[in-house]
Amino acid sequence: MNRRKKHGLPSGSLIHMGDHKLHQVEFSVMDFNEETYSEFEVKSIDDLAPCKSTETVSWINIDGVHDALVIQKIGEHFQLHPLLLEDLMNPNHRPKIEDFDDYIHFTLRMLSYDREKKQIEQEQVSFVLGEHWVISFQETPGDVFGPIRDRIRNNKGRIRKLKADYLAYALADIIVDHYFLIIDEIDEEIEKLEDEVLNGKNEEILRSIQHLKNELLLLRKSTLPVRDAVGNLMKGTSRLIAPQTTVFLKDVYDHTLHISDSIEIYRETLNSLMEVHLSALSNRLNQVMKVLTIISTIFIPLTFIVGVYGMNFRFMPELSWEYGYAMVWGIMILVTLFLVYILRRNRWM
Amino acid sequence: MNRRKKHGLPSGSLIHMGDHKLHQVEFSVMDFNEETYSEFEVKSIDDLAPCKSTETVSWINIDGVHDALVIQKIGEHFQLHPLLLEDLMNPNHRPKIEDFDDYIHFTLRMLSYDREKKQIEQEQVSFVLGEHWVISFQETPGDVFGPIRDRIRNNKGRIRKLKADYLAYALADIIVDHYFLIIDEIDEEIEKLEDEVLNGKNEEILRSIQHLKNELLLLRKSTLPVRDAVGNLMKGTSRLIAPQTTVFLKDVYDHTLHISDSIEIYRETLNSLMEVHLSALSNRLNQVMKVLTIISTIFIPLTFIVGVYGMNFRFMPELSWEYGYAMVWGIMILVTLFLVYILRRNRWM
Amino acid sequence: MNRRKKHGLPSGSLIHMGDHKLHQVEFSVMDFNEETYSEFEVKSIDDLAPCKSTETVSWINIDGVHDALVIQKIGEHFQLHPLLLEDLMNPNHRPKIEDFDDYIHFTLRMLSYDREKKQIEQEQVSFVLGEHWVISFQETPGDVFGPIRDRIRNNKGRIRKLKADYLAYALADIIVDHYFLIIDEIDEEIEKLEDEVLNGKNEEILRSIQHLKNELLLLRKSTLPVRDAVGNLMKGTSRLIAPQTTVFLKDVYDHTLHISDSIEIYRETLNSLMEVHLSALSNRLNQVMKVLTIISTIFIPLTFIVGVYGMNFRFMPELSWEYGYAMVWGIMILVTLFLVYILRRNRWM
Amino acid sequence: MNRRKKHGLPSGSLIHMGDHKLHQVEFSVMDFNEETYSEFEVKSIDDLAPCKSTETVSWINIDGVHDALVIQKIGEHFQLHPLLLEDLMNPNHRPKIEDFDDYIHFTLRMLSYDREKKQIEQEQVSFVLGEHWVISFQETPGDVFGPIRDRIRNNKGRIRKLKADYLAYALADIIVDHYFLIIDEIDEEIEKLEDEVLNGKNEEILRSIQHLKNELLLLRKSTLPVRDAVGNLMKGTSRLIAPQTTVFLKDVYDHTLHISDSIEIYRETLNSLMEVHLSALSNRLNQVMKVLTIISTIFIPLTFIVGVYGMNFRFMPELSWEYGYAMVWGIMILVTLFLVYILRRNRWM
Amino acid sequence: MNRRKKHGLPSGSLIHMGDHKLHQVEFSVMDFNEETYSEFEVKSIDDLAPCKSTETVSWINIDGVHDALVIQKIGEHFQLHPLLLEDLMNPNHRPKIEDFDDYIHFTLRMLSYDREKKQIEQEQVSFVLGEHWVISFQETPGDVFGPIRDRIRNNKGRIRKLKADYLAYALADIIVDHYFLIIDEIDEEIEKLEDEVLNGKNEEILRSIQHLKNELLLLRKSTLPVRDAVGNLMKGTSRLIAPQTTVFLKDVYDHTLHISDSIEIYRETLNSLMEVHLSALSNRLNQVMKVLTIISTIFIPLTFIVGVYGMNFRFMPELSWEYGYAMVWGIMILVTLFLVYILRRNRWM
Repeated sequence: MNRRKKHGLPSGSLIHMGDHKLHQVEFSVMDFNEETYSEFEVKSIDDLAPCKSTETVSWINIDGVHDALVIQKIGEHFQLHPLLLEDLMNPNHRPKIEDFDDYIHFTLRMLSYDREKKQIEQEQVSFVLGEHWVISFQETPGDVFGPIRDRIRNNKGRIRKLKADYLAYALADIIVDHYFLIIDEIDEEIEKLEDEVLNGKNEEILRSIQHLKNELLLLRKSTLPVRDAVGNLMKGTSRLIAPQTTVFLKDVYDHTLHISDSIEIYRETLNSLMEVHLSALSNRLNQVMKVLTIISTIFIPLTFIVGVYGMNFRFMPELSWEYGYAMVWGIMILVTLFLVYILRRNRWM
Repeated sequence: MNRRKKHGLPSGSLIHMGDHKLHQVEFSVMDFNEETYSEFEVKSIDDLAPCKSTETVSWINIDGVHDALVIQKIGEHFQLHPLLLEDLMNPNHRPKIEDFDDYIHFTLRMLSYDREKKQIEQEQVSFVLGEHWVISFQETPGDVFGPIRDRIRNNKGRIRKLKADYLAYALADIIVDHYFLIIDEIDEEIEKLEDEVLNGKNEEILRSIQHLKNELLLLRKSTLPVRDAVGNLMKGTSRLIAPQTTVFLKDVYDHTLHISDSIEIYRETLNSLMEVHLSALSNRLNQVMKVLTIISTIFIPLTFIVGVYGMNFRFMPELSWEYGYAMVWGIMILVTLFLVYILRRNRWM
Repeated sequence: MNRRKKHGLPSGSLIHMGDHKLHQVEFSVMDFNEETYSEFEVKSIDDLAPCKSTETVSWINIDGVHDALVIQKIGEHFQLHPLLLEDLMNPNHRPKIEDFDDYIHFTLRMLSYDREKKQIEQEQVSFVLGEHWVISFQETPGDVFGPIRDRIRNNKGRIRKLKADYLAYALADIIVDHYFLIIDEIDEEIEKLEDEVLNGKNEEILRSIQHLKNELLLLRKSTLPVRDAVGNLMKGTSRLIAPQTTVFLKDVYDHTLHISDSIEIYRETLNSLMEVHLSALSNRLNQVMKVLTIISTIFIPLTFIVGVYGMNFRFMPELSWEYGYAMVWGIMILVTLFLVYILRRNRWM
Repeated sequence: MNRRKKHGLPSGSLIHMGDHKLHQVEFSVMDFNEETYSEFEVKSIDDLAPCKSTETVSWINIDGVHDALVIQKIGEHFQLHPLLLEDLMNPNHRPKIEDFDDYIHFTLRMLSYDREKKQIEQEQVSFVLGEHWVISFQETPGDVFGPIRDRIRNNKGRIRKLKADYLAYALADIIVDHYFLIIDEIDEEIEKLEDEVLNGKNEEILRSIQHLKNELLLLRKSTLPVRDAVGNLMKGTSRLIAPQTTVFLKDVYDHTLHISDSIEIYRETLNSLMEVHLSALSNRLNQVMKVLTIISTIFIPLTFIVGVYGMNFRFMPELSWEYGYAMVWGIMILVTLFLVYILRRNRWM
Repeated sequence: MNRRKKHGLPSGSLIHMGDHKLHQVEFSVMDFNEETYSEFEVKSIDDLAPCKSTETVSWINIDGVHDALVIQKIGEHFQLHPLLLEDLMNPNHRPKIEDFDDYIHFTLRMLSYDREKKQIEQEQVSFVLGEHWVISFQETPGDVFGPIRDRIRNNKGRIRKLKADYLAYALADIIVDHYFLIIDEIDEEIEKLEDEVLNGKNEEILRSIQHLKNELLLLRKSTLPVRDAVGNLMKGTSRLIAPQTTVFLKDVYDHTLHISDSIEIYRETLNSLMEVHLSALSNRLNQVMKVLTIISTIFIPLTFIVGVYGMNFRFMPELSWEYGYAMVWGIMILVTLFLVYILRRNRWM
């Protein structure tokens, strides 16, 4: 999160705030309605002119948001607010849905779980929903939206029957659906941890618990604002969202609720796990100390006794008794038995 | 919770997301009003046609939600929204009540306590309330609704006098009422745990506490959404809910409040129990260490003393004293008494 | 809390859910207005007929709610909702105030503190406020409402000047006022505990803290719903509550606020007390370990030294020195002084 | 808090619930507008008659609320609600602001910090704001309002230019302003505690932290209800509060916000302090145990070695070696060095 | 925070509550619209007269708020409320935005991170937004607003095209933007701490964690009130805020949300870090105790054995056996091996 680059500049200044990426910005356009469908690459931004005017739904996908010039031009073409353009180029933005009357701006976080690093990877995905068009922005070219492209191409489901608002829903839905995969991964990690806590390896476990808690925080940070924003959108004040799309938004909303429920439960589980772990540590200390105490309790008195008869006094009657040595052994065995009895009675052995 | 099966498919895709069940989907229909009553098995979905049109209340119970084709057909027959059908087939849905104007969709969780595994078993139960019909969906055929069937058959209580909305209430009520049984079981488990904490067995207790906390989380996850949903329904905006049914909904609402109160109290009790347990651990460590300290404090100095007279110096006057040995014993007894006095004064013995 | 008795029965089924009580249900009626006043025992429920119709305020007190038949008849007589009757017979209901338009139903908990068992005893008290009548229901005959009866008999205060709604307020007020007595008792218990923590007795204290926390939970469970319910009632939507009674309700509301404030403060105090207690345990462990360490640190090296001169080597020059023995004592005294100095410097002695 | 005195009496019964005070109730009246100003003592309550009728602002200050007769008469004179009079005489009331249409009743807590006892002293201050008059009630005669009297006498600030509502504001403001002094004292106490935790004295510190936390609870109990009540008053529904006074109320509101912010921060600081303290305890135990372990680890093996050569076997070749003794010393030095090396490597020395 | 200076004075009394600063109050004025631009120093407050009347936007920046006379005059000139003037001179005010109909008053906190002291430095910045003018107040002359001055001078961005409300937004935005720098610094500090916890140095870490938590509290105290205040302002009830400025306010609002999200996450991270640290302490104690126990368990029995044969009984057959000594060594080796085996089996070695 490096805000320093931009500090003090007028708001709306288009400076890319992520790490610099060198690849070329790529455009792809899908234009469709229930009957027709076309797909084309775009050379210059002027090629996008028809997208705005025609009645067909146009989906413009843009891979790469580091090129201020391109963003600037698109902003002018679709008359987007400068602050929106600024947000597009800041890859660490808080997820939000902002209604600019003529268009709605979605900023979401695409999350994926990197199993190697056991870490959630995140990427910002934005899209702008206008009357007959949706523009989606991603930093790295990826195939997140592949299934949606397929559904458009093959006219599967409702996607070609409905309008741009349904397309925007479908894009948001596929992103939020991905969070369930993360939840599954975290679920597995927690199960592993539960086993490990049972087996009693320790410092590492604490760190793993911390790590997972941080991942949950990250997931929550991505989910909660979406939940609130979709909740707002559902209230149906925007003229861009058709009433029949609201039920789909409700579905996304339910998913975010489900996810945040799960997050809360996992957090509680992890807290419990930590408590079990700490109490196990404490238990083990008790065990160790018991052993020490048993050994000491038995052998320290015995050592004292043999010490007594190791003294070199000239007048020690026991030393010359014939059965003195045997007697000492007898005493020691009795003492030992007595101590073992005491320890057992206190349930330490 | 295995969302992966479905990932990337258009929403409304009917794929069963639970473990695959092979049994045949079973239908049973009860059709009644205050005077008449009939009950019949259904061969084909077309047999359901009259249920929708007649003025009598029809209750269609469907055991098995894994067959997409059946769900699809029913959806078409009763004109249910595709997202609703999708929810029906996902057995891990968050409980909710959704108002689709022409019908209301309830998703609840039937909970039962498996005493063997000391575990809450859950199963999703959905129903859809239309103008003159209620369709209920369960995965496994069970007798949860048995008592309601009896009440219809025997015309007991209000159930045949009132409309479909009362039937829907009765179904929801019997499910929520089951939660009290779970609460009773948990209550018993907690009482057992309290005794065990008193008797001081340990690591297992911690795990039992964790386990119960998880069960409470599960119960809460099933109850809270119901509470909120019923709370919304009570506001009376749906034309499917007659005003006189609202007071019954208020009753369900009160039950969910009661249950969530109890959950909170049990959670606090379990937290307290854990604290008592941890403090008992700590206490026991103190006991162990006290014993070690007492033994060491008394015998280490004595061992030193006998060590002194075990030295082999040629010139050690005490060794040749006639009462040297007796004197050493005397000294050791004095030292012991002094130490015991000190320990007692500090309340360690 | 034994819900099982009732499970699966139609709602509104009148089955008493408390422990079975055998005593006879007792009725007493007071009928008054500013000028007149009469009091009579009731033989049959039909005797209650005038209570409903006359303009004078009638207070019908019923001791014993276990007789379904009686409840049933009263319900018919005063046209009470079946769910209300069901609630009356369930002695473990969550406190609530429910507005049925023609009458308002109050369910409250009478609490008293049993000093012997150090435990809060609770009993459900319900009343129904109609236009000119109030019916109060208690399980065990008690004199909770004695002072109100006296005020009616002696025409003290406002009670005979105002209507049934004021009577209902007075009944609720006397119950909530009792909670302050509980608060006082808990206050005393906490003060005792504070002293005991200072004196350092332990495991028992933890249990007492737990116990008090549970009592507070119980008190909170009785108070919070009342607070919310009275808060709702105050909004003045019921035609049964005269505007001038609202200010009295506000007073009850303030009392519940006061009580819940106190509960929160006591809970925090008990948590603090527990922390002090645990830290005292920890402190004591430190003390014990310090003593062990001091003893060991001083005597283990000395024992080593005397061990050295207890060896039986033929060639050990020190053994035959004339002042060898004295020298060893000298060394040991020096070592001791040095160790004591070190321990003191580290503030362990 | 002794509610028992009053239990069961009709509400509005005037019984003083504080400890009995014997001093005479004192009245003082200031009567002013922008031009004129008069101040007089009051012999009988009838002298107050003009206060109510004239257009000038009258401030009646009453020191002593234990005399039910006086309160009763004032209540009749100014037509105050009986519940209000009851509240006046209960010195442990929750702070509140209650709007009775014709007058507004303020109950606040005057707090002062007793540096000797390190304790917050509290006293209830009530006032009633009418159209042209303010009556203030205090138990003990004090000079809290001295500055306001001076401002009236000297016509300083706005106080004589504005109406009774501004006077009421000024009284409330001076009380809330006092809370900042308490905050300052607590701030100092916390700084002292922070130093003491650093220096490592212990059990006392824990108690001091507890004590300060309790004081903060008390302060919060006095502030929060005021914040909420002023917040309500600001909404401007009362005709007694002129619109231009609202901005002053906003100021009081901001102060209470500021105070409650500070309370939260101090609470968190105290919690942190406790954690630092407990962790320091734990640290110190670790130190103690390390010393014990070092001493034991080094000397126990050495003592074993010298023990070996203290055995009296007839055939122990080493004993008769010429350099046996030196060899043993050599071995012991090597063992010691090795152990010290091991301990250092594990960073225990 | 030294409120005592002012205690008891009438509200609106202008007394500077910070530490006394001696520098001269400095004025600078920028006056601009889209076409023209002028900048001038001000000698006397009467020079400000045109600022208020002209249609151009005037930005009056005042460095130094300690001179009551100057504040007083400005207050009269721009007809500011006395309470506002009082707030200006109190440098410890809670951040707030207050709408006085004819002008809006912003009180914010400028934060900067002092890397030397690892501490957040704060300074209060206030501004008042009128119809065509903005007055900003700072205590110490600084260059916080430098970038904005540059944008005005160079006519960069929107600042000269829009009105005074945009200027006020720009000032607030630059202050809130600074908080991101603090967040970055804290992020770095936390990363350092995480490394240090891993390396296991201790008491200092706890203090650093406490310190950072306090800094976060400070940051939160500065951010949360701004968030709420901007949230209120956004609702657009003030006629001074043009509708097109609202979207910019939304941006500030989003930033404050982002910051408070980060604060929450850092707080949780620090709490986790503390738990890891405490558990590491506990772990280390376990390690220490294990070593002690291993050493004691092995050597105490051996020392006992050699003690036995150090006894001086005349009749001890073993002593005169030829292989007695070897046998003892044998026994000791066997005992050692057995104990090592036991310890390993319990995973203590």
